[in-house]
Amino acid sequence: MTLENISANKSFGGWHKQYTHRSTALNCDMRFAIFLPPQIAQGQQVPVLYWLSGLTCTDENFMQKAGAQRLAAELGMAIVAPDTSPRGDDVPDDAEGSYDFGLGAGFYLNATKAPWHRHYRMYEYVVSELPALIEANFPVTTQRAISGHSMGGHGALTIGLKNPERYSSISAFSPITNPMNCPWGQKAFTGYLGTNQEDWAQYDTTELMKASQAQLPALVDQGTQDNFLAEQLKPQALLDAAEQVGYPLELRLQEGFDHSYYFISSFIDDHLRFHAKHLGL
Amino acid sequence: MTLENISANKSFGGWHKQYTHRSTALNCDMRFAIFLPPQIAQGQQVPVLYWLSGLTCTDENFMQKAGAQRLAAELGMAIVAPDTSPRGDDVPDDAEGSYDFGLGAGFYLNATKAPWHRHYRMYEYVVSELPALIEANFPVTTQRAISGHSMGGHGALTIGLKNPERYSSISAFSPITNPMNCPWGQKAFTGYLGTNQEDWAQYDTTELMKASQAQLPALVDQGTQDNFLAEQLKPQALLDAAEQVGYPLELRLQEGFDHSYYFISSFIDDHLRFHAKHLGL
Repeated sequence: MTLENISANKSFGGWHKQYTHRSTALNCDMRFAIFLPPQIAQGQQVPVLYWLSGLTCTDENFMQKAGAQRLAAELGMAIVAPDTSPRGDDVPDDAEGSYDFGLGAGFYLNATKAPWHRHYRMYEYVVSELPALIEANFPVTTQRAISGHSMGGHGALTIGLKNPERYSSISAFSPITNPMNCPWGQKAFTGYLGTNQEDWAQYDTTELMKASQAQLPALVDQGTQDNFLAEQLKPQALLDAAEQVGYPLELRLQEGFDHSYYFISSFIDDHLRFHAKHLGL
Repeated sequence: MTLENISANKSFGGWHKQYTHRSTALNCDMRFAIFLPPQIAQGQQVPVLYWLSGLTCTDENFMQKAGAQRLAAELGMAIVAPDTSPRGDDVPDDAEGSYDFGLGAGFYLNATKAPWHRHYRMYEYVVSELPALIEANFPVTTQRAISGHSMGGHGALTIGLKNPERYSSISAFSPITNPMNCPWGQKAFTGYLGTNQEDWAQYDTTELMKASQAQLPALVDQGTQDNFLAEQLKPQALLDAAEQVGYPLELRLQEGFDHSYYFISSFIDDHLRFHAKHLGL
């Protein structure tokens, strides 16, 4: 698989780079961003944090706005940020052009319904294809952590819970914790998966946590002034599920913070240190 | 003068806020952003760093991308980011819609040529009107520092050199140091000021430094892989001027860095600490 490097910016002694490549999972060309810490230039292999962004985002939002590179450079951690959906002229979009379905809204699942199933397979892309690509092309170890925001928090939690052998730790900011029971999730699941609730449960953090065997360390931050808190994010559902099965989830309600990158940047260092500890850094 | 608060995001225990107001200097409505560090909630008055952005920017670029809030919150420093030109339906723009003249390209000067002179008075706005507004409406001291990027680096250096009694220190990233001798500056100065070179010299950092009496502490960072280095930025002209008059300028060439916010974020902490020292923090 060929990677094409399309940008490079020196950043905190390391590099921020963007690449494009043909994705087999998604059946289209994709772009991702990677932060390569300065330890790589000294011959070290580093672990990788995968960051999954929220609705409407691309690979750029986190890299430009989260302010993660300073500490990642210090810790010696690579960060990979994929796009949030398949892209390109051949990829179908929501007929109404809505922000919460179709382009920019892949929901980190494998769609089964036409016309979405040919491209909308972000779950397979994030779990399998992208890490294989990263590990074949960059001097990284196979130690991985996963994090994300909002729809990407849903992605990080579901992917981490379903693949505990592939990650050391999971974290999320403002995740959609119970998509089966919120408008964003119901719209996406109906469109991508149809109406069978058992199919939905495979991609619902709250349901997955109730059934979880392995218990990866998990950290979640949620702002109390988040506009989407009550209707879409529902952290109480996740807390209840964690309590029910004794899952060691740390969910912090951050007083006064909202859904923006001003919130993420305020606590990203905590998340990097959390993952660094579990990655053995 | 009435300020209208249009957004508020909690950030590192402080607040990022945006305001609009009627500007007398610019004869239009303007927007600015302010970071208020957490010390304000504890009853302290804090000094202010004014940040001037580059071509095409608004008040948002620095606040979203520089990653300055973490250390500003720790140091107890407010940061104010104005827009880069007058705005609004009544404000003339470049006929060709170019990015380097007109909207988004005010060059921090007072235009004297029609039709620009009615609105394009960013020098007066940044030097006088905006600080008066900030100091009347927020719990800040009259201690000020000034910094900026590219066109905003030119703005910070010229304004600081011309008003040493108003600032404790000056810094810049990738500044246009000698606009009289580069395409961006020549185009802007011809349009806003006409063809008299004596008028141009009033807004040229290299010329101002040669004539400077007071010598404010000044820090400049310039990336060696900046695409605009040789044609537009010309740091050697500034270095030569500083040497000629013995100005205590610290100009650092940062190996491998470019013109982007990945560069700014990598060194913004150095600039904040530099200003903090001279502000007595």
